[in-house]
Amino acid sequence: MTKPLVGIIVGSASDLAVAEKAAAILREFEVAFEVGVASAHRTPEDVINYASSAADRGIKVIVAMAGLSAALPGVVAAHTTLPVIGVPIASGPLSGSDALLAVAQMPPGVPVASMGIDGAKNAALMALRIISTRDDSLTWKLASWAQKAADEVRASRAKVAEKNMPDVPTHVFQPEIED
Amino acid sequence: MTKPLVGIIVGSASDLAVAEKAAAILREFEVAFEVGVASAHRTPEDVINYASSAADRGIKVIVAMAGLSAALPGVVAAHTTLPVIGVPIASGPLSGSDALLAVAQMPPGVPVASMGIDGAKNAALMALRIISTRDDSLTWKLASWAQKAADEVRASRAKVAEKNMPDVPTHVFQPEIED
Amino acid sequence: MTKPLVGIIVGSASDLAVAEKAAAILREFEVAFEVGVASAHRTPEDVINYASSAADRGIKVIVAMAGLSAALPGVVAAHTTLPVIGVPIASGPLSGSDALLAVAQMPPGVPVASMGIDGAKNAALMALRIISTRDDSLTWKLASWAQKAADEVRASRAKVAEKNMPDVPTHVFQPEIED
Amino acid sequence: MTKPLVGIIVGSASDLAVAEKAAAILREFEVAFEVGVASAHRTPEDVINYASSAADRGIKVIVAMAGLSAALPGVVAAHTTLPVIGVPIASGPLSGSDALLAVAQMPPGVPVASMGIDGAKNAALMALRIISTRDDSLTWKLASWAQKAADEVRASRAKVAEKNMPDVPTHVFQPEIED
Amino acid sequence: MTKPLVGIIVGSASDLAVAEKAAAILREFEVAFEVGVASAHRTPEDVINYASSAADRGIKVIVAMAGLSAALPGVVAAHTTLPVIGVPIASGPLSGSDALLAVAQMPPGVPVASMGIDGAKNAALMALRIISTRDDSLTWKLASWAQKAADEVRASRAKVAEKNMPDVPTHVFQPEIED
Amino acid sequence: MTKPLVGIIVGSASDLAVAEKAAAILREFEVAFEVGVASAHRTPEDVINYASSAADRGIKVIVAMAGLSAALPGVVAAHTTLPVIGVPIASGPLSGSDALLAVAQMPPGVPVASMGIDGAKNAALMALRIISTRDDSLTWKLASWAQKAADEVRASRAKVAEKNMPDVPTHVFQPEIED
Amino acid sequence: MTKPLVGIIVGSASDLAVAEKAAAILREFEVAFEVGVASAHRTPEDVINYASSAADRGIKVIVAMAGLSAALPGVVAAHTTLPVIGVPIASGPLSGSDALLAVAQMPPGVPVASMGIDGAKNAALMALRIISTRDDSLTWKLASWAQKAADEVRASRAKVAEKNMPDVPTHVFQPEIED
Amino acid sequence: MTKPLVGIIVGSASDLAVAEKAAAILREFEVAFEVGVASAHRTPEDVINYASSAADRGIKVIVAMAGLSAALPGVVAAHTTLPVIGVPIASGPLSGSDALLAVAQMPPGVPVASMGIDGAKNAALMALRIISTRDDSLTWKLASWAQKAADEVRASRAKVAEKNMPDVPTHVFQPEIED
Repeated sequence: MTKPLVGIIVGSASDLAVAEKAAAILREFEVAFEVGVASAHRTPEDVINYASSAADRGIKVIVAMAGLSAALPGVVAAHTTLPVIGVPIASGPLSGSDALLAVAQMPPGVPVASMGIDGAKNAALMALRIISTRDDSLTWKLASWAQKAADEVRASRAKVAEKNMPDVPTHVFQPEIED
Repeated sequence: MTKPLVGIIVGSASDLAVAEKAAAILREFEVAFEVGVASAHRTPEDVINYASSAADRGIKVIVAMAGLSAALPGVVAAHTTLPVIGVPIASGPLSGSDALLAVAQMPPGVPVASMGIDGAKNAALMALRIISTRDDSLTWKLASWAQKAADEVRASRAKVAEKNMPDVPTHVFQPEIED
Repeated sequence: MTKPLVGIIVGSASDLAVAEKAAAILREFEVAFEVGVASAHRTPEDVINYASSAADRGIKVIVAMAGLSAALPGVVAAHTTLPVIGVPIASGPLSGSDALLAVAQMPPGVPVASMGIDGAKNAALMALRIISTRDDSLTWKLASWAQKAADEVRASRAKVAEKNMPDVPTHVFQPEIED
Repeated sequence: MTKPLVGIIVGSASDLAVAEKAAAILREFEVAFEVGVASAHRTPEDVINYASSAADRGIKVIVAMAGLSAALPGVVAAHTTLPVIGVPIASGPLSGSDALLAVAQMPPGVPVASMGIDGAKNAALMALRIISTRDDSLTWKLASWAQKAADEVRASRAKVAEKNMPDVPTHVFQPEIED
Repeated sequence: MTKPLVGIIVGSASDLAVAEKAAAILREFEVAFEVGVASAHRTPEDVINYASSAADRGIKVIVAMAGLSAALPGVVAAHTTLPVIGVPIASGPLSGSDALLAVAQMPPGVPVASMGIDGAKNAALMALRIISTRDDSLTWKLASWAQKAADEVRASRAKVAEKNMPDVPTHVFQPEIED
Repeated sequence: MTKPLVGIIVGSASDLAVAEKAAAILREFEVAFEVGVASAHRTPEDVINYASSAADRGIKVIVAMAGLSAALPGVVAAHTTLPVIGVPIASGPLSGSDALLAVAQMPPGVPVASMGIDGAKNAALMALRIISTRDDSLTWKLASWAQKAADEVRASRAKVAEKNMPDVPTHVFQPEIED
Repeated sequence: MTKPLVGIIVGSASDLAVAEKAAAILREFEVAFEVGVASAHRTPEDVINYASSAADRGIKVIVAMAGLSAALPGVVAAHTTLPVIGVPIASGPLSGSDALLAVAQMPPGVPVASMGIDGAKNAALMALRIISTRDDSLTWKLASWAQKAADEVRASRAKVAEKNMPDVPTHVFQPEIED
Repeated sequence: MTKPLVGIIVGSASDLAVAEKAAAILREFEVAFEVGVASAHRTPEDVINYASSAADRGIKVIVAMAGLSAALPGVVAAHTTLPVIGVPIASGPLSGSDALLAVAQMPPGVPVASMGIDGAKNAALMALRIISTRDDSLTWKLASWAQKAADEVRASRAKVAEKNMPDVPTHVFQPEIED
């Protein structure tokens, strides 16, 4: 069995729905990962144990997700030298703007790579970009994935046609058409 | 067939629902337009191709709509000298306040005309005002449209009467009555 | 004497320092303009007279600048069919975030093209882009100006060298050097 | 028939639902009022006609309600010396925070009395307080109304009892009990 | 000696600099006023005594100014039926945005008329508008003051000329010139 | 019957749903409490009576909850030397961000311990921590409760397994497993 | 030597200037305290050691101060059952609004008592209120201190007189004058 | 000469002062880097050329810094599969809150690792963490650097003693003392 390279840790089981978006990307890229639930405030020792042992267990990047006063990514980063990606979760009445500031505004000395609010998909892609710096095969997969994403944007053009009425001269933008 | 004068470009097919509000206005004014889907981040070459070729294809104004970190209008403006109107879309947990800042707070040198959040209708009207500076017939249509909009506001007064009970001396404001 | 094509209107004489940045650009492009001081709240008739007569006097674009509850651009737009560019001014304790919302969040039906806070330079460039849709010579001037701005960014690279010490292998990014 | 003392003006018929909360209070106090729909941007002449003629028609206070870039209260205040109460409406994606700033952050010289977002009930009560400075009977009605509101708060205590379980020594706060 | 009609109350002596702007206006209109320092949190009894006795002492309007969690205007309003004008003060790191929300977002039942941040001048003008509803002479003074303010805006036009260079065809906006 | 040690006071009966979360915790710890409804603006005398008599009646901590311009906790704190915990309630269009600032940004001299928005559960736990400084048995209950909360976080790990598909090498994080 | 009852901990030595405001109050009340510098991100073990040993060393309340993504108070609270008071510090470009959210928006289960931004003085007063629940002598000192603070507010009235000119009938508010 | 592993790119030469903080860290770790000036809006081709060629030239991580509507990091990320770290710069009246949202709120599919506002030092440390995943010697340097940073925090304790007066029993927190 492949040893996990990416560790995903969420501050509460209620954040697992967001974490699933990261998991889906990692599965698509066939990069092994692990998922855990640990809270910087309710189970701080678990967080510290996890963070301080992750590198030795072969983890290369940690993705930490939390809402509200989202201390989890920063606490993880304080106990490892691995790159830590933080995902602010939009729980609570402030729609994640509190979590975004908590994740992004880290004091100098302990970096966290903040994604956007609920940005779990991008967290996985960032983890893959980081791992690709030591694994060329991932670089090509990422480039190919980006190409596919671009093709999907282009294909979505069809939805424009569906929405436009025929009696008005509406032209569809087609920069990608070759023939 | 009339060549399009206005190019509408959205960053994601999910933004087409908002774009439809702009399209409805342009159809009402019988100004030809085209609609495209291209992302500043996922299909940047499409955006650049589109922006840099739009003037040569006869486009006079580009309307670019995007949500979140809405880079699309700025990237379009960087590759054309046409006036570019940006519409921040209210996607995501921050209700478009992120997109509004991304569209409006352009650095000096590359202007984007920001509308309000989801302000697609106004984007179309702004495009028409711009085109009217070279087409007097549009000026009259715009004045007449504004008159009609004013009449609709006045007609909506009727809804006041519906809501007021008869036993309290409530008077309806009627500044527009001429006789 | 050339008739002005751009009308600049500020809500208060204290905003003229910002307006000067727009004036400098228009002078550089040799596009005639006029400058006025009129307040949507203190001299509303002046604003209305100005806005409703501007088109007849040959004005093609109006740039309206105001701070705080910046009603000026919207009131101007309500009395003309010319394109109106709004510049929120950073006066007051909220640093112009109030003015930005007041300028950008116009209700459907009356569009204002919002620039960024204190974005007077971009307002002038946007006015020039609009006028260029009816004056091809401006298109070329705008392209040439953008080229010059790009060259200035490239030239500013020299400042990097000044700041870097010689004993660390620091390489200067030179994508624009061809030979 | 009693001549109206309070003029309520909303920027859009869609704001009438909020205006009804003000109307209910005015009816309860048997103070005559009128309601109108006029937009600072779509029917600016109506607004000006209304504001500049209101005092002569016997109006003592104007309540102006609008959402988004809520220019209406300020424009009304610019055309009358009557006290103008502004109610920011929570329409649009920013939940009325845009309207609150537009109503409250008026430039020096033209005052508007801002209520809270959707604060139509308080707008009516403020109008009544203003009118009470010239009509002592209203002062007593206001004091009596406030007493009734206080009694309702006290009576709502019963809901606490409903929610508390009997097996835990929970004591109900009863500062208002006299015997 | 004239009995004061307006009561100004500030939450801290450090707010008196802002209060002076209100005092200057009231002196200009020759409306008697009084000024006090009382804190909703540090001297609440003083605030209550003041608010509940103000009407009997002849006060017609109370202007209450405070910063941070600005409870003062609301507490005053809770102990009087007089109209209460609240001025949020820009003390503290949040530049008065905290005070603005505290003053404006009053719960239904107890109205406060919020001015803009540091809006002491407008507070005085609003007090005058309120008093003018029972004193016609003030109405004329207010109209004349507004006319003077408008003239000052127009006169400030001269500053435009000072800033413009003679060799560019810059026209000064002169809607108010009649002959 | 045990005398209550914690006084919970809400500004409106509509806030009782939030207060219930605090009550549940206090019941779980078998600490007697009382609940009251009193408004800083509508029944200010009740609030003052309550706050100034609470210590004499044996109350050790007061928890005050309110929304909008949440003056209640501050007014309570002004009339007692007991520690006062404030809970901003997410009522109204600003989702409690107004109440958070009103509760937290107290002027120097009168402290309020602000919880997060709708943070009633934490308010109860903070009240218990305060009381535990004079009652060692509570200290142990708090430590045991925290241990239980940690165990629940760990147990929630099972939800990860439910969400992961078997065909991808996903490892569950298990830092707390000892054997 | 008296054993300290209050532990003050700051996240960075640059925050000591703010901490001094708390220290001054504690000295004034003759309550022993200790001050330490420890960072949740740079010296997390120190924080944990401190928090988990504080109760055994006799500390009754911990005051934790930090700026930016202010995790310190929450991490402290996670390792003790003592009441923890958090002070968000206004360091960085966001003026402490980031720190306020990080301190206040704690997840359910681990409470932190947030003060206002830079609210070190109130933190000390809150610590004293908490300790007073087990030390009646402090209750009287707090009441007496509050009385003195009230007297200072009243005395500051003299500054009003200094600022007012003699030729306008300005009356000084004197609710506290007894004779 | 060592080939650079980290590419730093700033949107404007005025951002170089912030970039210097990143450069200082990289020099301290003896990791080669290069610095360039290129604007997503004024020299977009330079940005694209740079981003798309960086991997081939041996760059492993790109740090992109920009203010206002900070599109630079996102545009860079759109043209490479390397990990891109974005640093929002506090230029302009909104203190970098606009840039933070522009950098962090990237749409799904193109990740950017956002640092805090002006977080150039952390950007360099994050770049080093990423490179350390393929270079074990860096891991040790990072751990040693973190240890040194912790020691500096501890040493800063001396500043507490300087600030405290001797006549009050103030104890210095010394968890790190071993003997």
